Amino acid sequence: MKIIVNGVKGRMGCEVARFLSEGFRGAEMIAGVDIHPEGAERYPVFEKLADYSGEADCVIDFSHYLATEELLDYCIARNLPVVIATTGHTETELAKIREASEKIPVFHSANMSLGIALLASLARTAAKTMPDANIEIVEKHHNRKLDVPSGTALLIAEEIRQERVDHQLLVGRHDNGRRPEKEIGIHSLRLGNIVGEHEVILATDSQVITLKHEAQSRRLFAEGAVEAAGFLCGKKPGLYTMKDLVSG
Amino acid sequence: MKIIVNGVKGRMGCEVARFLSEGFRGAEMIAGVDIHPEGAERYPVFEKLADYSGEADCVIDFSHYLATEELLDYCIARNLPVVIATTGHTETELAKIREASEKIPVFHSANMSLGIALLASLARTAAKTMPDANIEIVEKHHNRKLDVPSGTALLIAEEIRQERVDHQLLVGRHDNGRRPEKEIGIHSLRLGNIVGEHEVILATDSQVITLKHEAQSRRLFAEGAVEAAGFLCGKKPGLYTMKDLVSG
Amino acid sequence: MKIIVNGVKGRMGCEVARFLSEGFRGAEMIAGVDIHPEGAERYPVFEKLADYSGEADCVIDFSHYLATEELLDYCIARNLPVVIATTGHTETELAKIREASEKIPVFHSANMSLGIALLASLARTAAKTMPDANIEIVEKHHNRKLDVPSGTALLIAEEIRQERVDHQLLVGRHDNGRRPEKEIGIHSLRLGNIVGEHEVILATDSQVITLKHEAQSRRLFAEGAVEAAGFLCGKKPGLYTMKDLVSG
Amino acid sequence: MKIIVNGVKGRMGCEVARFLSEGFRGAEMIAGVDIHPEGAERYPVFEKLADYSGEADCVIDFSHYLATEELLDYCIARNLPVVIATTGHTETELAKIREASEKIPVFHSANMSLGIALLASLARTAAKTMPDANIEIVEKHHNRKLDVPSGTALLIAEEIRQERVDHQLLVGRHDNGRRPEKEIGIHSLRLGNIVGEHEVILATDSQVITLKHEAQSRRLFAEGAVEAAGFLCGKKPGLYTMKDLVSG
Repeated sequence: MKIIVNGVKGRMGCEVARFLSEGFRGAEMIAGVDIHPEGAERYPVFEKLADYSGEADCVIDFSHYLATEELLDYCIARNLPVVIATTGHTETELAKIREASEKIPVFHSANMSLGIALLASLARTAAKTMPDANIEIVEKHHNRKLDVPSGTALLIAEEIRQERVDHQLLVGRHDNGRRPEKEIGIHSLRLGNIVGEHEVILATDSQVITLKHEAQSRRLFAEGAVEAAGFLCGKKPGLYTMKDLVSG
Repeated sequence: MKIIVNGVKGRMGCEVARFLSEGFRGAEMIAGVDIHPEGAERYPVFEKLADYSGEADCVIDFSHYLATEELLDYCIARNLPVVIATTGHTETELAKIREASEKIPVFHSANMSLGIALLASLARTAAKTMPDANIEIVEKHHNRKLDVPSGTALLIAEEIRQERVDHQLLVGRHDNGRRPEKEIGIHSLRLGNIVGEHEVILATDSQVITLKHEAQSRRLFAEGAVEAAGFLCGKKPGLYTMKDLVSG
Repeated sequence: MKIIVNGVKGRMGCEVARFLSEGFRGAEMIAGVDIHPEGAERYPVFEKLADYSGEADCVIDFSHYLATEELLDYCIARNLPVVIATTGHTETELAKIREASEKIPVFHSANMSLGIALLASLARTAAKTMPDANIEIVEKHHNRKLDVPSGTALLIAEEIRQERVDHQLLVGRHDNGRRPEKEIGIHSLRLGNIVGEHEVILATDSQVITLKHEAQSRRLFAEGAVEAAGFLCGKKPGLYTMKDLVSG
Repeated sequence: MKIIVNGVKGRMGCEVARFLSEGFRGAEMIAGVDIHPEGAERYPVFEKLADYSGEADCVIDFSHYLATEELLDYCIARNLPVVIATTGHTETELAKIREASEKIPVFHSANMSLGIALLASLARTAAKTMPDANIEIVEKHHNRKLDVPSGTALLIAEEIRQERVDHQLLVGRHDNGRRPEKEIGIHSLRLGNIVGEHEVILATDSQVITLKHEAQSRRLFAEGAVEAAGFLCGKKPGLYTMKDLVSG
């Protein structure tokens, strides 16, 4: 699989380039694109997507949501599947993504970690299988993180709420009183240099089930993007997300 | 749901009786059966199944594998679903169970914990979704347990091996040398009074996923048996196991 | 060691009696005292302490704080060490306890678990050794517990604050924004039937240390009371707490 | 505190240089020494220790055990405290280290992580405080690690055995049968890319205590070396180890 990496000089673009250079299930980087293309690399770097017309099986995009339209035009013109790993799109831009997905396979996910998508899916299955269990979520991040709770914790909670539609989220329990039955508590620890941990705990009167994901490095998201690219190849046009990579 | 508990004076039969007395999703104990029926109880206790011909929706059996044939005859005659929670059957007895399941719904599972069946199923999904992950299993039990590893750890490992057919189990890593790729390590901790913990850990180069089940008491198995009974009611004849209770 | 158990028919008194009947480092129950002494037991039960004048090495008291004065009088008169495991004393009653401790060895602790005292002590040592570490506390209890956070979590936090006198406690983080450096977060999970778990996590930029205590049953407090009794025997008069049982 | 880093171009020397460049409790790198001194840096690099005679408060050595004698001569001549972070010394070389420590403060530790020394110390305190607890150790490392168990797990076990002199170590439990009372089980997990985790679990009949250390990066050892340097400054001559940095 020959991959073009768009935004290859950014933090995540670099991670993907490094990850691909180590070799992963036959994937290889055939070209990089960046608005700042200077600097010697082991692969050719172009300033614009349009500058490259060589071989390719897929594009991975870690550039910027403002570049999405140009990206889609390029991929449609060349009939290339595309993994869009940027976020922050307006409704208009999201509509363009959906439109493009009628012509080519498009992967777009708020969360590029396959492990997190897996955790959310397992948690939902557990919530369905054990309808009487109380559920709480614990997430740990480094002491510089500003948002409470993490976006990923909310994503997991929403997946669980597909099975518990009448449950309310409680962020940071701090009042006395008996726990309401239909509550999902979220607990946000901030300490040290932790990249990211998410834990879902389900407890009945006689057992406790704990499902935990630990990210060890940003490499995780590079890995996820390349896995998404591999998944897209050979797929028919459509809009895919990380959920589609979790085995049923 | 009106339940007959066979073997109601045994250790697990008592647990089921106690569990049902607390009320669980409309289930109630309508009659108990035990070869030692003496002793006042809040429910009638009969010496033999054949002595009771009143109302019933299901039989839960925690008696003994030698009593299975009589149990099946009774359930077929009355067209009652049956949860068989005993183990140790011979091939001949197992054949009788299969035969009976053509006429009535029969639930038979080596492990009566819904949580453990769930854990095994989640671990299999995870193993399939992350084909490059190394997998290890840790189990903890009290210091009186004789078997290493636990039967439940083996059950979980076998479920994982459905996705990793070429992997070998290693019980207790104790030799130097690089870990073979196609290995699943099982680690058996024995300490204190721990009822039972099973943990499956999957790790790639950038993330770790941990799935854990903790049993807090034998009540767990009573709960599982009653859940199985609820599942059986209204089902057509067939042989069911705990796996069927895990939501897809 | 021959032990008198005061309040032997109460919930915790029963636990102590059961615990001693199993045999623990040569300790035995020589007499029980309870205002409701009826019911056959393997040991003599008296209605009042004053009714028993036989052999004894120590008294363990799980009766009621209103009975403390009578208890102290009895122990001083007989020169017996005493473990007071009740709480809720007024300032006047506490003064009486201190006064008595000038004549006999008195053990009085808000928390009768040696494991929790150990956890608090280890957490304090860790906080001192790693002055730059961020600290957070997680506690888990059953879904019927009313107080948030648990008294034990506060006890542990106060022990840590001996080394971090300028740190503030935060119960249940729920606002966005960067974590203040001088903060200790406490997170209260409420779910299922968990007896009690307390976890202290310390993290620097390159490592994480986690110290965790899990109570498996109330037996824990019976065990702690008997350990305290063993500790008292042979000690000179004074006021002792669980901290004194933690090895230096 | 002005620090000379010996072996500054090696893997760990680089980590120390990077760590010091971020600023840590007023420590700064005043000079580097390496047999391969070429390459531009923000600090002066010399080929030999003897080439630098400027200001200094301490030397941190991550070079090679063969260079220890030259290192000691330099430090004695300049009356500088020294942190020796290399291992593999012969008996003769160890004798030289001891000899030097009569003239200058010398820090020498098989393990440069303060967190691991803390864990070992806490585990020993716990083992002493709870003499009836069963103890097991779990360690997790990446799938390329060759030794089973890890040297650090053995170091922790030996520290615990100071309180349990009659206990035997068991590496990887794999035989059926009841756990001997005087046994410490060590369990070695090998998976993914885990830098290093060590966990000590103590369990009695009613409680479980878990003490865990997670290394997140090699930076840990750089941090430990600089902490050791800070500890040495102002100390009188003597031989110190990581244990001395754990607060009593």
